[in-house]
This record gives sequence, structure tokens and C-alpha cells, in this order.
Amino acid sequence: MTDVKMPLRDLRFVMREMLGSDAHYASLGYGEVTPDVVDAILEEGAKFCENVLAPLNQIGDQQGCTWSDGEVTTPTGFKEAYQQFVEAGWPALPHNPEYGGQGLPPSLGTVLSEMVGIANWSWGMYPGLSHGAMNTLEAHGTTEQKSTYLTKLVEGSWTGTMCLTEPHCGTDLGILRTKAEPGPDGAYAITGTKIFISAGEHDMTENIVHIVLARLPDAPEGTKGISLFIVPKFLPNSDGSVGERNRVVCGSLEHKMGIHGNATAVLNFDGAKGFLIGEPNKGLNYMFTFMNTARLGTALQGLAHAEIGFQKSLAYARERLQMRSLSGTKNPQGPADPIIVHPDVRRMLLTQKAFAEGSRMLVVHCAQLVDITYRGSEEAKKEAEDLLALLTPIAKAFITEVGFESANLGLQCFGGHGYITEWGMEQNVRDARISTIYEGTTGIQALDLLGRKVLLSQGELLRRFTKKIHKFCQAEIDNEALAPFVTQLQALNKQWGDLTLQVGSKAMENADEVGAASVDYLMFSGYTVLAYLWARAARAANLKLAEGADEADFYRAKVATARFYFERILPRTTSHATAMQSGAASLMELDAAHFAF
Amino acid sequence: MTDVKMPLRDLRFVMREMLGSDAHYASLGYGEVTPDVVDAILEEGAKFCENVLAPLNQIGDQQGCTWSDGEVTTPTGFKEAYQQFVEAGWPALPHNPEYGGQGLPPSLGTVLSEMVGIANWSWGMYPGLSHGAMNTLEAHGTTEQKSTYLTKLVEGSWTGTMCLTEPHCGTDLGILRTKAEPGPDGAYAITGTKIFISAGEHDMTENIVHIVLARLPDAPEGTKGISLFIVPKFLPNSDGSVGERNRVVCGSLEHKMGIHGNATAVLNFDGAKGFLIGEPNKGLNYMFTFMNTARLGTALQGLAHAEIGFQKSLAYARERLQMRSLSGTKNPQGPADPIIVHPDVRRMLLTQKAFAEGSRMLVVHCAQLVDITYRGSEEAKKEAEDLLALLTPIAKAFITEVGFESANLGLQCFGGHGYITEWGMEQNVRDARISTIYEGTTGIQALDLLGRKVLLSQGELLRRFTKKIHKFCQAEIDNEALAPFVTQLQALNKQWGDLTLQVGSKAMENADEVGAASVDYLMFSGYTVLAYLWARAARAANLKLAEGADEADFYRAKVATARFYFERILPRTTSHATAMQSGAASLMELDAAHFAF
Repeated sequence: MTDVKMPLRDLRFVMREMLGSDAHYASLGYGEVTPDVVDAILEEGAKFCENVLAPLNQIGDQQGCTWSDGEVTTPTGFKEAYQQFVEAGWPALPHNPEYGGQGLPPSLGTVLSEMVGIANWSWGMYPGLSHGAMNTLEAHGTTEQKSTYLTKLVEGSWTGTMCLTEPHCGTDLGILRTKAEPGPDGAYAITGTKIFISAGEHDMTENIVHIVLARLPDAPEGTKGISLFIVPKFLPNSDGSVGERNRVVCGSLEHKMGIHGNATAVLNFDGAKGFLIGEPNKGLNYMFTFMNTARLGTALQGLAHAEIGFQKSLAYARERLQMRSLSGTKNPQGPADPIIVHPDVRRMLLTQKAFAEGSRMLVVHCAQLVDITYRGSEEAKKEAEDLLALLTPIAKAFITEVGFESANLGLQCFGGHGYITEWGMEQNVRDARISTIYEGTTGIQALDLLGRKVLLSQGELLRRFTKKIHKFCQAEIDNEALAPFVTQLQALNKQWGDLTLQVGSKAMENADEVGAASVDYLMFSGYTVLAYLWARAARAANLKLAEGADEADFYRAKVATARFYFERILPRTTSHATAMQSGAASLMELDAAHFAF
Repeated sequence: MTDVKMPLRDLRFVMREMLGSDAHYASLGYGEVTPDVVDAILEEGAKFCENVLAPLNQIGDQQGCTWSDGEVTTPTGFKEAYQQFVEAGWPALPHNPEYGGQGLPPSLGTVLSEMVGIANWSWGMYPGLSHGAMNTLEAHGTTEQKSTYLTKLVEGSWTGTMCLTEPHCGTDLGILRTKAEPGPDGAYAITGTKIFISAGEHDMTENIVHIVLARLPDAPEGTKGISLFIVPKFLPNSDGSVGERNRVVCGSLEHKMGIHGNATAVLNFDGAKGFLIGEPNKGLNYMFTFMNTARLGTALQGLAHAEIGFQKSLAYARERLQMRSLSGTKNPQGPADPIIVHPDVRRMLLTQKAFAEGSRMLVVHCAQLVDITYRGSEEAKKEAEDLLALLTPIAKAFITEVGFESANLGLQCFGGHGYITEWGMEQNVRDARISTIYEGTTGIQALDLLGRKVLLSQGELLRRFTKKIHKFCQAEIDNEALAPFVTQLQALNKQWGDLTLQVGSKAMENADEVGAASVDYLMFSGYTVLAYLWARAARAANLKLAEGADEADFYRAKVATARFYFERILPRTTSHATAMQSGAASLMELDAAHFAF
């Protein structure tokens, strides 16, 4: 089995050379975040991920988590790795210094999370969910709640969870039933069952802070009657130490296809003591803070599995000798040629490469927008928020879809060996499979994108982004090296707007047209966004080549991958466009009773 | 968990109403295969599959096979189910009456295999591999070999395997190393290691007949120096009973992503006694008999997983209440609407339906061609063989690719529950994943199709098929109900030929153009073949509707599904066409050393 390496060179390309992170940090007043500091963080993070987390990835899959009488034991080494993570101060990296955080840019946290995810996604979910809980508390908690809970989460001695789903509702939180009854002391008694709670119970920390959606007795029906509560596993004493056990118990763990190292808990709340976050009945709004974090976090998962698949299948394709090249023997000393000589193996490798590297661009781009929402001017903030609103569902759904495709291509490069556990390729596929589901399925992201973000804003959010693409194309129109990319991108950009108008006008007649077009629309959007980013990457690489920079092979490979993306991957937009233009009729005409006989 | 049902109504539609199986059997002299006999076989088979095999599917996944000191124990119930299968005479169904077979048409065996596969693919591989071994012996064994081995295989008291792969070679059998040394008694001593041997060791029968590829001492290098041997686990006594243990031992079982119920064995041959099949050095040619059986058999696997995914996700989508329809509440009494009201859920269901039912048409069509290769006139035989040569790689690769896609869509319809083991959807995905790999990966099938079948025949094999499509379109050109299908099909059919010419002419300059285009070419071909079959299905259904037949809803659903296929799925051909037209350059320009830094 090949070890994974952290893609430091590519991260530096994307962050610094393509997306100008040094100037970006400086402009947001992160004077201390010099290039050296960034490099040091990347390198230290990479060491930890390669040396500590990656070796536990397969162990986590094989052992899984074990439940006994409400207590959960994580796989061998997980707890110790978490201790090291805490001792190095990683949980505090992007958080508020008032509560012990290091106050570094969120985008550095994202890059760290990518590396953690590549090394060991299941392990990374423990601090990952905590991170979501921290963001929620930071945004909506009282000062007292922050000092009691956030401080512990930031130092990493406690972890957090997010408790949304119930057996009868996942997508449709409006029908959730968990109830919260006010008590005499200002606290609430929380009663109900939550399922699919990632990192919901474990042995890594002395306490777990559950952030729980529940309904007050007098709450209105639907999504407008949901409130948000802090429900700690152990109630904290006034000195911050861990006190009485709260009435929330892990009833069981789910048996899952993958991410075995992470405990997916059924949590039974039986009058557990909970503390209201913010105002009553605004819980779902607050939860969106977490959801946006979580959606970008899940986009990272697609990226991580694409990167793992790519790295491992590339190593295998360079070594595995099988058949001769059709265009003449390439390895005359050996019994056969390495399979990387075969065009179709290259197609599979390049597809993974284009998706892994392209997704990295999109994630870092989004992460820089998040930085701006924290530190930018009011105007810049608003602009970044709007752009994030558009890009988040695309990043989440598109990257996880192509991440799963990539993980499968990685497996496929191994032939029969890919199906065998020891190589790790099938674990990569199993782990990846959840990413298109949780934090809102691809279908839900697609409705969010087309319905809420694009059509509800009358196309305004989209126009702001397509204008950026248009500007880029205009600026590069005379750049001969970019011509093939710019021409295609410009046409696509226009088509994106046209398709939006078409769907929008049909949707006024029949709301089902939105759902009928949505996933094809989302995938079309994703391919277009990545085309824009690949064109920018090619531009950045060409500039370096023109400067006569070292590492010319690295930059040439970037341009070659951009070319591959435009020639081989981008044609997929045509199918999505035609499919969505066919409208809702062929989907809706069949009576539900007549789907099968 | 929903139980699967055998798709008897659809099988009858495809076999009888669409592909005229009654006349087909009569024309081949199968006078005894009346409609009643066919129905009885289907119904008996369905009962066995639903009542005996299906309940063991999840058990097989959870228990897997266990190895101890060279012996393998299959999951609980597998052995007993096999005994029932043998007692009912199922293994004998399509085989030669001279050796105990029932002499029924191979296509009936295929339909039985489909049902077995839907019920329990892992279990079905034990008789499935046996079936391949039987076909090989029937075609190439001596009378003595047949009476010794084939008789036992046909009655089912022994099973067979096919031993091709070695640790260093799967696709590239030319470099295999297992050696066969002639002994004084006319037998051979076989020495070497074979891996990935499905059903390679088990406790279901008293003996296992391995069909093994090996190399004689004086054999030429490469694929022209491979011979084929019978290597029984126990050497038979002259009275047919099981005698001395042969020197072939199962060294271990692989740990796999799925198909846990089937034992994937490492077999160590240590001077095991083997018996030559046919002439020396012709083993690979003989093996093609098995391979063609196995490839159609694997196409069935794609179909089976699509059918399972479709049935289970349909049942779930009808019951699961989540969100309201965007076009107005459909289930006002309930807290939410069943998810089948949502257009994107319908898209996922209809995609599975179109692939499951369309794949069934292609498999039954191929199976009828196999019937003709057994019983047709010399001319009809030749024509059927040529058509099968073209369609087999398409059926194998295309159906397994869309089968895997369908299995994943099935899982997706369940949301988070799809990722949980108990629902069976994730097993369906894991089981399906191997199908695009074994018996030749999608890449290998694509090279076989484009390189060997299409270009090597100067397009002749393809032209014969596109002529059939052309004829169909000509005949239906004035059929108004079919107009939208026929117009699209005719254009696609022409494009298929044009693309072939383009790739062929590029390939004369650069052989890598074949590999660069191959998988896109194969997928394009698959979508086109299915379009032809869906158009024929719509025609058959329209005829029934015009006749005023009962079950109008069934026939209308066929036409609606054809429409969905043409409007929503067929646009994918455009992307494949554009991608393959981009040629080899973007795949080949990057140096193998520069794929990652």
C-alpha cells in the first residue's frame, strides 16, 4: 500500500500563485500571517497528517467503533492522535482569541482540514464536527455560554456535535419532534431521539457538547418552530470542570458502508438538561451557520477522496506492468509496459487529477471568501457572503459527486486488486460514498442553488459571478496561450445565463420544473466554475513559465491538465444542458403506482 | 427492508412481446418449449429465488466465507440452498442431454441466471462459474473428459471454476507463469499460484473441477504458448466417485469490498495432476468460449444490481414522507408528501428503471443470439456469432457501468439510510462494484469493441448492426407515435458510423487514438444500442395498446420510460462524442513523471 503525501506543492500553487493568498491575508489585516508562517503551518500540519493520522486510516476502517452500555471506544490510536492534535493547538487555529483561539484566517483552517481529511477522514470528523459547533456558539452563544463551552472546545478538551436528524426526518427538519420543556431554572428538559449523529459519542475527550434542534411546547409548526440548545454530556461545574452526567445516552452505533472510524450515534435524550442558544424558534436560522461550515467541510471530503485515489492509482499505474503500449513498446527490459502508457489509464488518472486539483481551487477560493466575511469591509463582506451563498451548494454537491467518481476511477486503475481491502482503494470508495448524502444530498444542494440562490434572487447572485467570468475572459481575450480556454469559457458562461432564464421562465408555469432541472443545472454549474478556475490556473502557470521560473515541468503539467479538463471533461456540460432543457414532463407523467408491475 | 420480487411481468414482455421468444424457440426446433413451459420455468425459478436465495443475500454479506487450513465454509444456508437447486435440476437446464442436461435453450438459462442474480449474486456465482466450466468442456473436451467431468457438473454434484489470473497478471495473460509438465501417464503436473478464483473453494459439493491456464515447458512466449487443463480437487476414480486428493490447495481467501458470500480463492498448485483440454498452446482460444459466457454473465450482474436498486428505492420512495411537493401538497393527510412526488427523486427512479429494463432487453437479445449459435442454420449461426462478437463487450461494459450507477442512485434515494447496512442498499453498491472489473475491465471491453471487433473488421461487424437499426427506422418512419424516437435514433445511428470512421482514420496515424477513444466509444455505443431497444419496446407496447390489450397501464409505462430514456439519458451521447473527437493528444502529452510533484 502506498502512503499518501500531503499535496504541499499544489496547495502553495493554488493559495499563493493562483489565488494570491499572501496579499489576501495582508489586505485583511493578518499582518502576522506571512508567507513563512503559512509555510510553517502547512509543513507542520503535513507532518502530523502523514506520520500520525494516515497510518490510522486503515485501522479505523477495520476496527470501527465499538459500543458497550452507552460508552463508545474509538479505534486503536485515535485517542492518542487526538491528544497530540490538541497539544499542538490545532483545534484553536482559526478561532477567536478571546476564548483561547489563535485567530488565524479560517482559510488556513480549511487547508489544514483538507490535509487531515486526506490522511484520515473518519478521524477528522471528530474535530470537524467540533469546529461546526464552535462556529455556531461563536456566532450565536451568550458570553457565558462561550466562556463555559467555547473555551473548552477551542482548547480541544471537549468536542462538539450537531444533532439535527431524527428517524422520520433528515431533509425535512420542519417535522422534527424532539421537545424542549422549560424548567424553573431557566434550563430546558430535552426529550427525543436523534440519529446519524457523527462523533456523537466517543472516548477521546472528557465531555461532549451536543448542539440540538428541538421544539418548545408552544412553538409554531414547521421550520419556524425550531429552537437550538446546548446539551452537554456532562453538566459543567461552575469552575469549568466536568460535573453531573446529563440524561443523554448513546443507544447504539449505526453499521455503515464506510467511515467506520467515526462513531455515528443514536442519541436518546430523556429529559436531558439543555440551554437555549439565542432566541426561541430561530434555531434553524442559527443552524445555517453550522450548515454552511459543514457544507464546505463536506466539499473537502470529495476533494480528499479524489486526492487519495489519484495518488495511489498514479503510484500503481507507474509500477504495474501489464500489456504493451499500442503505439510501440515503452519498457523493453520488462515483461510488459507500466500501465500508465495506456491512453485509457491516463484518462482515468487525469480525470482524478483534474478533479482533485480543480476542487482544491474551488475550496480555497471559497475559504478565502470566508476570510473576507470575517474581516473584510462591510461591502466586501456582503459581496463575499453573496458569492458564498451561490458557490457553497455547488462546492458541496459537485465536488462530492466528482470526488466519488474519482475514488471509483482510482479503484478501477487497480483492476481486481482495487476490489481487495488491503490496497485501500475500496475503503476510499466506501468512505467517499456518504459525502453526496450528508449535510444535504446532491438533490437538496441543487434545489438550494437553483431555487433559493439563483431564481429567488432573480438571477442576481448568479449574474455577479458570471460577470467575474466575463471580465476574466475579456481581460485575456488577446492572450494567445489561453485562447482555447477563454473561447470555450465565454460560450459556457453565456449558456449558463441562458439556461437559467429558460428554467426560470418554465418554473413560473410549473414549480416542478425547478426540481426537474436542478441536478443537471448544478452539475452544469460545477463544470463551468471549475472551467473558470482551470483557466485561471493555466493563466497563473503561463505567467510563471513566461517569467522563466524554476519547476517548469510543474507549470507545464498545470497547463496540460487544464487542456485535458477543457477537452475531455467539459463536454459533459452539453449533456446536462440538453437533459435539463427537456423539462419536467418526462419525469412527471408516470403515475407513482405505475413505476413497476 | 423490502424483499425483492422477480420481474416476471417484465421478463415476459421482453422475451415474448418484444423479442418474440415463442416464435424464436419454435424456429430453432425447440418444439417442447411452449409458452406454458417457459412460464412454468420462470415461475418455479422465481419461487426458488424469492423464497430460498433472496433471504440468504444479507446473511452472505455479513458472514462471508471462512477459511481454515485450506477448507472453506460458505455462509449459513448456502450449502442447503445449493442442494435444493441441484435437486430441482436447475444446473442441467441448458446443457447437453448426452451428459444429463435438459437441452433447453441457453436463453432460458440466462433468464434463470438473471433471477438468481437479483436474489443473491454471490450465491449465484457458484453455479455461474460452473456453467462457464461446462460450456468450455462441452465445446473442447474429449468424450471421456465429458463423461467424467461434465456429467458431474451438469447434475450439480461437482462445481467448476476458471483459473486464469496470477498475482502479476490479470489482463495480460500472455505473461502467465503457471507451468504444466508432462508426466509418464499422459497427465501433467501443474505448478503455480492462481488468484481471484471465484468459487475456488467451498463446502457445497464433494468435488471442484478447476479449469486452469498453464504453460508447457516448450511453449512459445506470450499468448500463443498457453494451454488449458482440467485439474480436479479430488481425482475421480474410474467409477466416477471421488478419489485421491489432488495437490491443489486454497491458500487463503481475499478480503473484498463486496460479494462476501462468494469465496475468492488463492489457489496453490503444487504439482497437481492436470489433464490437457484439446491441443497444446490453444488454451487461450478455448478460454474465449468461457469468456464470452462469462461476459454475458457479468452483464447480468449489472442488470441484477440495477433491478435491486430500483425495486427497493421505489418502495422506499412511495413510503418515505419528506417535504411537500413544490407544485402543491399531494398528501394533505400526512405530515409530508411521499418523496416520489419530487422530480429529482423521479429522475433517479426512472434512470434506474430505464437501465434495468433496457439492460434486460439487451441481455435477452444476446441470449437469443446464443440460442441461434447452437441451433440455427449455418448462415444464421455465423450472423449471430458476428453480432454477438460486437454486442458482448457492449453488454458487459455498458450494463455494468450503468448498473453501478443505478445501484448508487438506489442508495441515494434512501438518503442517509442508504448508507446504513440494514437497508441493503450499500451492499448492493459494494456487490455491484466488481462487475466493471472482472471478466475484463470496462477499458478492456472497450478496446475489444473498438479495436478487435469494429476496426479490425473494417467496420463490417458494426455496419451489419447499424443496418438493422436503419431498417427499423425506415420501417417505422411513418409511425407517428414513434416519430420522436425514430428521428433521434436515426441521427444517432449515422453518428455512430461517422465517429467510427473518424477514429479509424486517426488510428492509422497513431495507434493510441484507439485507446484514447475507446471507453467513450463504448459508452456511446451502449446508449445507442439501448435507444434502439427502447424504441422497439415502445413499438411493441404501442401495438398492444392499439390492440386494446389489458394492462394498458403497463404498456403506457413502457412508452413513458422510453420517452424518459430518449429525453433524459440519450443526451449523454453528445458528451461522449465530443470527448472522443478530442483525440489522444491531451491524454498523451504529459510525461509519466510529471503527473504529480
